[in-house]
Amino acid sequence: MASRLSPRAAVVVTGSELVRGDRRDLNGPFLVHELLSLGVEPARITIVGDAPDELEAALREGLAYDVLVTSGGLGPTHDDRTVELLARAAGVELEVDAAVEREIEARSRAVAERLRRPYADFASGVTKQATLPRGAVVAGLAGTAPAFALIVGECVAVVLPGPPGELQALWHRALDLDVVRSVVARAQPPQRRTLRFYGVSESSVAAALEAAGGDGDGVDATICARHFEIHVDLVVAPGAERRADALEAALLPPVEGFLYTRGEAPVEAVVLDACRARGWTLATAESCTGGMVAERLTSVPGSSDVYVGSVVSYADAVKESALGVPAEVLRAHGAVSAATAAAMARGVRERIGADIGVAVTGIAGQGGATAEKPVGLVYLHASGPAGELAADFSYGGDRESIRRRATVAALHLVRRLVTES
Amino acid sequence: MASRLSPRAAVVVTGSELVRGDRRDLNGPFLVHELLSLGVEPARITIVGDAPDELEAALREGLAYDVLVTSGGLGPTHDDRTVELLARAAGVELEVDAAVEREIEARSRAVAERLRRPYADFASGVTKQATLPRGAVVAGLAGTAPAFALIVGECVAVVLPGPPGELQALWHRALDLDVVRSVVARAQPPQRRTLRFYGVSESSVAAALEAAGGDGDGVDATICARHFEIHVDLVVAPGAERRADALEAALLPPVEGFLYTRGEAPVEAVVLDACRARGWTLATAESCTGGMVAERLTSVPGSSDVYVGSVVSYADAVKESALGVPAEVLRAHGAVSAATAAAMARGVRERIGADIGVAVTGIAGQGGATAEKPVGLVYLHASGPAGELAADFSYGGDRESIRRRATVAALHLVRRLVTES
Repeated sequence: MASRLSPRAAVVVTGSELVRGDRRDLNGPFLVHELLSLGVEPARITIVGDAPDELEAALREGLAYDVLVTSGGLGPTHDDRTVELLARAAGVELEVDAAVEREIEARSRAVAERLRRPYADFASGVTKQATLPRGAVVAGLAGTAPAFALIVGECVAVVLPGPPGELQALWHRALDLDVVRSVVARAQPPQRRTLRFYGVSESSVAAALEAAGGDGDGVDATICARHFEIHVDLVVAPGAERRADALEAALLPPVEGFLYTRGEAPVEAVVLDACRARGWTLATAESCTGGMVAERLTSVPGSSDVYVGSVVSYADAVKESALGVPAEVLRAHGAVSAATAAAMARGVRERIGADIGVAVTGIAGQGGATAEKPVGLVYLHASGPAGELAADFSYGGDRESIRRRATVAALHLVRRLVTES
Repeated sequence: MASRLSPRAAVVVTGSELVRGDRRDLNGPFLVHELLSLGVEPARITIVGDAPDELEAALREGLAYDVLVTSGGLGPTHDDRTVELLARAAGVELEVDAAVEREIEARSRAVAERLRRPYADFASGVTKQATLPRGAVVAGLAGTAPAFALIVGECVAVVLPGPPGELQALWHRALDLDVVRSVVARAQPPQRRTLRFYGVSESSVAAALEAAGGDGDGVDATICARHFEIHVDLVVAPGAERRADALEAALLPPVEGFLYTRGEAPVEAVVLDACRARGWTLATAESCTGGMVAERLTSVPGSSDVYVGSVVSYADAVKESALGVPAEVLRAHGAVSAATAAAMARGVRERIGADIGVAVTGIAGQGGATAEKPVGLVYLHASGPAGELAADFSYGGDRESIRRRATVAALHLVRRLVTES
C-alpha cells in the first residue's frame, strides 16, 4: 500500500439498482485503480441508493479524505441529488452557472427537436443541471450532466456521472483541472509489477514469498487466485525498487517453471503472440466449453492473423461430421475421453486448415455424467507442427466454473505447446 | 423500495484487492439482493481494505442499522481483523470458544497432515480463529473460519467469510439462527416482478410507465437498460398487488410487441425452450462474435437436446470450407454482408445438420473496417423450417460491446424466428 503520507481518497457511488443487487458497480473498481496508479491511496468505496440521508452521510464521510470522487446522481430528475447534497454536506451555496446553463440548453433543444417534444418539457431539468455549488470548476458535460471539481476545506471533490463510459472520459478531463492537479501532484505514483503463474497452488506461491522474506519496506505484495491462475502483484513505493528486485529474485526459483508472464497480458494474448512469433495459425474444437475458448481468443484485437476459427461440436454427430472424429473412437472411448480430444484437435487442424488445433471435451453438468465419468471430468489436447500435448482434470465445481477452468486449461495447453517447442 | 418501517441493513466488505480495483466485489450485490428479497432494505455497501481504522469505522457505521452483514477478514493471519474490530466497535470482550477451537484444530491437523507440515505452524492461527466476541452464535465454519451472528444493541451483525461460495453457503445457515430470524421476521418480503423487452428504447418504456401513472403507492419500478435489453423490475410491497396489476396492464399496450419474457429467464433460455417446444435443433455460425452466441446457449444446463454446435469462421477460408459460403458471394459482397450472413446461416444448418441456423458477421475492430463498412457494422441471419429472418445494425461502441450487442441480437433473431412462426 502507498505510504501514509500519500493523499487518501474515498469513492462514493450512488444508484438504487446498485444497492438492490440488480447491477454491479464498475465505477468504484475503475476509480480506485486509477487513484492507486496516481499514488493516491483509495481508502473506501461506499455504494448507496438514492435515499437522501444515506447519500448525504456518505458524502460527508468522503469529505474527510484528501480526495472524494463521486459517481452518479447528476441527471435532470428529482431523484438525482448528488449536487444538492454535496453542497449541503460542504456547507456551500448552490447557484446557477450561466455558461453551463447555455450549453445544457443548447444540447436539450437539440434533443427536444430530435424527439419532437416541446423544449418546455426540458426547461426545469436544464436549470437543475446547471445549478452547481459555488466555486465548482466544470470539467465537461456528459450529455446534459456537468462533471466538476470542488475544493471543500482540505478535500478536493470530483463529481462524475454514473454511466461508465462517460465517467471514464470525464475522469480524465477532471485530472487536467488545476484544482485536481494540485492534490495529485503531492502523490508519488508507485511502481506496479505483476507476475502471473499457472499450474501452481496459491499456498506454494505464498510459501515462496514468505521464504523470500515477505513484503514490507515499501513493497506490498498481494497473491491472488484469479481465473484459475495465481497472480502476484507488487506495489512498489518510490525508492523501494531494489528491495522489489531482490524480493522477486528470491521468490522466483521454486515457482519459475509456472511463471507464464510478467505484466498484465491475459493468457489468450500470450498464446496469440507466441503463435504469431512462429508464424503459426490456430483453430479450436470445443465441446463442454461451447465457444468460450474461441471467445477469449477473439476478444483480443488483431487476433484474426493467428486465429482462424472453431468448431463447437456439442452433439456427437457434429464431432463426426464437422471434425472427422471416427465413429469407432466415440464408440470405444466415449465423447469425453483422451482419444476423442486428440481426434478433435487433429480434426480441427485438418478441417479448418490451421497449424495448431486445440480441443476440449468434458462434462460440465449432470447430463452425460456417469460413475466413471463424473461431472467436472475434462480432457484437453493440443496438436501442432512441433508435437502434441494432452491434459485432463476432474474438478468439483459448478457448470460455469468447470467451463471457465477448462477454457483456461486449453489456452495454457496451447501456450505450452508453442512456447516449449 | 421497501417501506421505511422495514429493517434496514448495511453491508461491509473488506479486502485490500477490492479497494485497489484488482478484483470486483461479488458479495455486496449478492447480499443486498438477498436482503431485499427478505424485505430488509439495503441502505449501503461499504468496501474497505485491511487498514484497521477504515474497517473499524465502516463496522461502527454499520452497527447503526438493524442488520449489519460483513464479508471477509476472517482468516488466520494478522491482516484478518474483522472479528477483533467488530468486538471493539461493539464494545464487547473477545474470548476463545472452546468447542469451535476443537473443531478448527481438527480441521487444521488434517490440513497439516496433507501438506506434511508440523501442526505447530497452525496452532496460533487456530486460537486466533476460535477467538470470538462474547455472545457470538456460530453458524458454521468455512474451512477454519467461523461465521457467526452477534446482537449489538438494536443491530444483529452477521459475520461471513469472503470467498463467494463460502459466503453464500454460510449466509443461508446464518438465516436459520434464532437471533437472525427474529430480525428478519419483522420484515415483509416484497413481491418482485420482472418484464423484459428487446428492440425498444429505455425512454419509450419510461414514457409508457409515466403514461400509466408511474410508480408509488407501494409499487417501486426500476427501468434498466441491461445487456442491450430493457428490464422493468417492479418491487411490490405487501398489499399493493392490485396496484401493481393495474400498472402493468396500463403500461404494456404501447410496448407489448417488444416484451419477450415475464420473469428472469435470459434470452438464451427462452430460445432453447421455444426450440424444444417445437422439437427443433439449433446451430450457430459466428464470425465477429467468435463463439459468444454458442457460449450463451451452452451456459444453460440441458441445452444439449436443442443446441448441436457452431462453426466459428473467423477466417474467410473457413467460411468457404466449413460453412460452404460460395467464393463468389464473398467476392461480390464481402465477408461482412447480408448475403454472407444468409449463406453462413444456411451453410451451418446443412453442414452441422440442424433445423435452425443463425449467423453473425460483422466488424468489431479496426481490422477490416472501411469507409463503407465501418467498425460496428453487423449482419445477422436466421434460417429455419418456417422461414428466414435477417437484421443488421451499425453501432458505435468498443470491441467488446459490439460483440455483446451482436450476440444479443442473434439470440433475439432466433427467438423471433421460432416464436413468431
